[in-house]
Amino acid sequence: MSLSTTTAAPAISFTSDNIAGASPTIIEAVAAAAGGSAPPYGADDSTVAVKHKLSRIFEREVDVLLVSTGSAANALCLATLTPPWGSVLCHSDSHINNDECGAPEFFTAGAKLVPMSGNDAKIDPTQLRKAVNRKVGDVHSVQPATLSITQATESGSVYTLDEIHELTRIARAADMRVHMDGARFANAVVSLGCTPAEMTWRAGVDALSLGATKNGAMTADVIVMFDQTSADEAAYRHKRAGQLASKMRFQAAQIVAYLEDDLWLRNARHANMMASRLAQGLNHTPGVGVLGTPQANIVFCQLPPQLINGLLARGYTFYHDRWEPGTTRFVTSFATTTEEIDGLLSSIRRLAG
Amino acid sequence: MSLSTTTAAPAISFTSDNIAGASPTIIEAVAAAAGGSAPPYGADDSTVAVKHKLSRIFEREVDVLLVSTGSAANALCLATLTPPWGSVLCHSDSHINNDECGAPEFFTAGAKLVPMSGNDAKIDPTQLRKAVNRKVGDVHSVQPATLSITQATESGSVYTLDEIHELTRIARAADMRVHMDGARFANAVVSLGCTPAEMTWRAGVDALSLGATKNGAMTADVIVMFDQTSADEAAYRHKRAGQLASKMRFQAAQIVAYLEDDLWLRNARHANMMASRLAQGLNHTPGVGVLGTPQANIVFCQLPPQLINGLLARGYTFYHDRWEPGTTRFVTSFATTTEEIDGLLSSIRRLAG
Amino acid sequence: MSLSTTTAAPAISFTSDNIAGASPTIIEAVAAAAGGSAPPYGADDSTVAVKHKLSRIFEREVDVLLVSTGSAANALCLATLTPPWGSVLCHSDSHINNDECGAPEFFTAGAKLVPMSGNDAKIDPTQLRKAVNRKVGDVHSVQPATLSITQATESGSVYTLDEIHELTRIARAADMRVHMDGARFANAVVSLGCTPAEMTWRAGVDALSLGATKNGAMTADVIVMFDQTSADEAAYRHKRAGQLASKMRFQAAQIVAYLEDDLWLRNARHANMMASRLAQGLNHTPGVGVLGTPQANIVFCQLPPQLINGLLARGYTFYHDRWEPGTTRFVTSFATTTEEIDGLLSSIRRLAG
Amino acid sequence: MSLSTTTAAPAISFTSDNIAGASPTIIEAVAAAAGGSAPPYGADDSTVAVKHKLSRIFEREVDVLLVSTGSAANALCLATLTPPWGSVLCHSDSHINNDECGAPEFFTAGAKLVPMSGNDAKIDPTQLRKAVNRKVGDVHSVQPATLSITQATESGSVYTLDEIHELTRIARAADMRVHMDGARFANAVVSLGCTPAEMTWRAGVDALSLGATKNGAMTADVIVMFDQTSADEAAYRHKRAGQLASKMRFQAAQIVAYLEDDLWLRNARHANMMASRLAQGLNHTPGVGVLGTPQANIVFCQLPPQLINGLLARGYTFYHDRWEPGTTRFVTSFATTTEEIDGLLSSIRRLAG
Repeated sequence: MSLSTTTAAPAISFTSDNIAGASPTIIEAVAAAAGGSAPPYGADDSTVAVKHKLSRIFEREVDVLLVSTGSAANALCLATLTPPWGSVLCHSDSHINNDECGAPEFFTAGAKLVPMSGNDAKIDPTQLRKAVNRKVGDVHSVQPATLSITQATESGSVYTLDEIHELTRIARAADMRVHMDGARFANAVVSLGCTPAEMTWRAGVDALSLGATKNGAMTADVIVMFDQTSADEAAYRHKRAGQLASKMRFQAAQIVAYLEDDLWLRNARHANMMASRLAQGLNHTPGVGVLGTPQANIVFCQLPPQLINGLLARGYTFYHDRWEPGTTRFVTSFATTTEEIDGLLSSIRRLAG
Repeated sequence: MSLSTTTAAPAISFTSDNIAGASPTIIEAVAAAAGGSAPPYGADDSTVAVKHKLSRIFEREVDVLLVSTGSAANALCLATLTPPWGSVLCHSDSHINNDECGAPEFFTAGAKLVPMSGNDAKIDPTQLRKAVNRKVGDVHSVQPATLSITQATESGSVYTLDEIHELTRIARAADMRVHMDGARFANAVVSLGCTPAEMTWRAGVDALSLGATKNGAMTADVIVMFDQTSADEAAYRHKRAGQLASKMRFQAAQIVAYLEDDLWLRNARHANMMASRLAQGLNHTPGVGVLGTPQANIVFCQLPPQLINGLLARGYTFYHDRWEPGTTRFVTSFATTTEEIDGLLSSIRRLAG
Repeated sequence: MSLSTTTAAPAISFTSDNIAGASPTIIEAVAAAAGGSAPPYGADDSTVAVKHKLSRIFEREVDVLLVSTGSAANALCLATLTPPWGSVLCHSDSHINNDECGAPEFFTAGAKLVPMSGNDAKIDPTQLRKAVNRKVGDVHSVQPATLSITQATESGSVYTLDEIHELTRIARAADMRVHMDGARFANAVVSLGCTPAEMTWRAGVDALSLGATKNGAMTADVIVMFDQTSADEAAYRHKRAGQLASKMRFQAAQIVAYLEDDLWLRNARHANMMASRLAQGLNHTPGVGVLGTPQANIVFCQLPPQLINGLLARGYTFYHDRWEPGTTRFVTSFATTTEEIDGLLSSIRRLAG
Repeated sequence: MSLSTTTAAPAISFTSDNIAGASPTIIEAVAAAAGGSAPPYGADDSTVAVKHKLSRIFEREVDVLLVSTGSAANALCLATLTPPWGSVLCHSDSHINNDECGAPEFFTAGAKLVPMSGNDAKIDPTQLRKAVNRKVGDVHSVQPATLSITQATESGSVYTLDEIHELTRIARAADMRVHMDGARFANAVVSLGCTPAEMTWRAGVDALSLGATKNGAMTADVIVMFDQTSADEAAYRHKRAGQLASKMRFQAAQIVAYLEDDLWLRNARHANMMASRLAQGLNHTPGVGVLGTPQANIVFCQLPPQLINGLLARGYTFYHDRWEPGTTRFVTSFATTTEEIDGLLSSIRRLAG
């Protein structure tokens, strides 16, 4: 992998959606929360409001825990769903498998992540079907306990509702639970044009890591538990993981503003559009191949070395050569502007010409 | 315990310093951090600035990790200092022992907290001396590994420098490490009038949980590692605990502002003064006994039932009857006003009269 | 503590029942198991026989897991009954609290042992009543989950059936589970003259650590699960704890012989009688006070220093001065002879004279 | 997988070496250990003798811990060598990865096993070379910490000394530690004709799981620590894992007898010879292909369905169709007789004819 920067030009970065700041209304909400006193540890009005808003959005009562990172959301969900002798079936490219330094193993007290392959960072149902029945009831082996799917995926693809249903049906037939890593949940919702309910509990999901940080919030993500039998357990795990913030209202205020007036969907729609604009531009550039069909806010493409080097020299930053040689990733966010995309495209075209 | 509220009057709360909002300059700093892009995961300028500021404040190079809660700070420090077969010697009233739902046990993979007594929530050195030698080298027993002291304590007292030295000398002579839970560190610094260095590494402390949330920040606390041999380990533990925020700049911005222009010390000095004003007023009220000598921002006193009930009826909230019958706790903060203290005192006097 | 030996005289040891060898019929059974082949991992006939025998002895179907140590039995039972955020209420003198180097904390992934006091190493019901309701439902605190009682106790006393019922009623009313550490279970059964069922599941016990090693076996103890809903979980925990022996028949053969023809009860009856003979003899010795009323195979007494030293000089080994100065413990076993007891008494009388 | 038995004929089993009983001299040693008293918890003479014998056999002072299973040996070694945020690089066919229900993950508090491929169940050095440098120093990823190699392997192959050296050199250059799973260590030693020292610490191994149970003992395996800096830690982990047997002499007696007069090597040599005799016979049987070159006591071969079914009908038991269709495994042991091998071969020839 390589993430290069040059000092000559002002960096315009497409490394990830986590480099963006925060939506103005979210900052305003946080500022407004700073005055007066409020009960601590989630007994404040904003935290209660988050639960109500999400129950409305998901069209059923849900349990909600606010956390400071997506890793915490994932690890807590997995620990609640998976016994220590269980396994979590996930894609080999998944964030939980690669990028959390063993947080799921830590929180679950030593469960095993079983990586599976599949195109576009989506789990192949045929593989899943084999895996869910592997050594079931055999004490010598960890037991398939939880399916974890990432929506939108780490590669920028989005599972269709049918694809989700197919995977969760396999899991549930094997008495397994289902977790969705929704670090980019909003991007997937607007991409599919479906309801949040359709993409989660109506499709067999028990627990959701609902990302907000990458999509306009500052330091807040949310655990949404559809399976309320585990809600108590999740609350104790949340506390003992050091995630129960005393001034929870500052995290809740972010989420309230995030959900208000569909800001979360508007932000995601914008990010997706920027990615789509970039992908279309790239597809019209000779010598440049967009990989897959970008469906969220991530664009993978294949660039020749001189083009990569040219962009770096102009101050652009992005991940490249981390997967295959020449494979390059651009990530857009709610804060990406049309001008930035067009500027990037124009640079690429000039370098490609 | 009982925390009563009435709906008749606007609640003025003295339950804890965690009910306060945030200092305006901290909110401004967070808002300023929201624009533009920045590298994630602590590679941003603000996080770097925190390390520099704290190295200057502590008069030596320190390693720094930003966390979202004090429980996370404590548990990570303890896990870095204590092996799974070790014990943590702490006061029986300590937050780590009572109020973190087993976070230290979770993060350490099963170390044992050994509670010790002592007046004013301070560990009795005589007890410590016995405890550090208990079953050392005996595989049948957990091994004394870490001393954890809270400064200022949970009861509002403050260890003198001599008292800290006495405890840490005992611990270090037994090859133990030393953790300081400084959820109210600033309150203790201004109370003693010493330097942060004198109260920590110069007094034998290896790792500090430096509180900010209770003293004007929103959702940020800091781990300060004086023992840099453990810094790498702490960083991996921090990540796998779900504490490495992608938009770390939002936590760093809080801490930069917190340390800027001595805001942390000014806030703490104010909170302490409010507590002192309250204690003096109580001491001049017949039938009311202040317990101990409040040295930080917590005042314990003994109130007759009708006085407690009278205050509750007027809309005050505070903890009472949680320890001994009639024992009542008032906590002040950076946001407490002179008027609020005087109003409380005047209510008490009227009810006591 | 002090465990002294001299080289002058052949050591006759009363330090513990774990210094004894094994019953001849148990050794014969192991030798008989050595020939021919047998299915591994507990699928052998002997392991099946253990389950049948114990189901008959306990007058109901039970689930059984063979383990290599009592610590493993205790830790596995506790891990199966207690969530990581739970607490185990136990006596402060209990083996799980003092002598297992944190095995319960390790196996439970960080649950907390809450020590309680009470005379004769028996939990005081009044204390238990308070403890079971402490901070229930409060996420800031570990939750009372499991009561663990040792029968016979570490001090050689035995809970009456009424005492067990009183404790388990308190626990069950608080929705807690009950574990019995029966490292000296047989000694308690013969002491009370009750049935194994009466002392366990009929008295509200969910899981039993059934000791055999101290009472004539070599390296085998047994987990007996009365709560069969946890049996599957216990089996996975057992395997991943490294306790599923491939040649399980060698552990099973020990237990089959242990249970055959009431060997376990005969061995325990003998050990108790030896302790009783010793206690009676001591009670008739001027200047020597037996402490408590020995009901199993442990005798505590108070000896003057010159008597302790005299015994040590004659080659006796035993624990002394580990509790209060002069407090001395003698433990008998199935292998202790009348001659050894009488020899010890005669030495004591001569030294006391 | 399928392990079939029929009731018609007396079962002659080749499923594993763990179905055998125990060597007579080992049983005699255990019986001899049953008389008289001995200090508990490894302070007995036999346990001390094990350490001396192994120090002599390995030509250097070693630390030794006796355990009841090979899984416990492996998990304790790995936990001692690997931090919770570390990874264990191992073969995808390894016992620790497949057959221990997550014991390594449990004992290490959540480290990650990273499976690698390679022919004959041996790790491919090219893959290892990549893996040891993967994301080193990146807190988002577990850190390569320990290399675990199985000798002899799960497929019956044996690493040459050069192959071991090559792997350990790669590991040590990356600052990693090295574990050897020697469940069939003796089989490998006699196969290579090298010294135990050459195959372990002289080849860069830090900790060895030295198997005895499969090769003539009853319920005893051994951890041999060459890296004595970790010996203390290993002892505490051993106790808190419930592996410190009170009557350790019964495990030590097994190992003393196992090592006495080269019994361990004689048993292994016999088992290897039986496998070799079987392999040669199979190679002379038309239609039957031995897979790989059996170097220890395991023979893999490819059998047609009717041959498998014919053997099953005659009462033979063995694993087949667990890997590829028709792939069949026969395992010999110290107890396997020439007559049993010849009988099996003659059955196969008749069925193949």
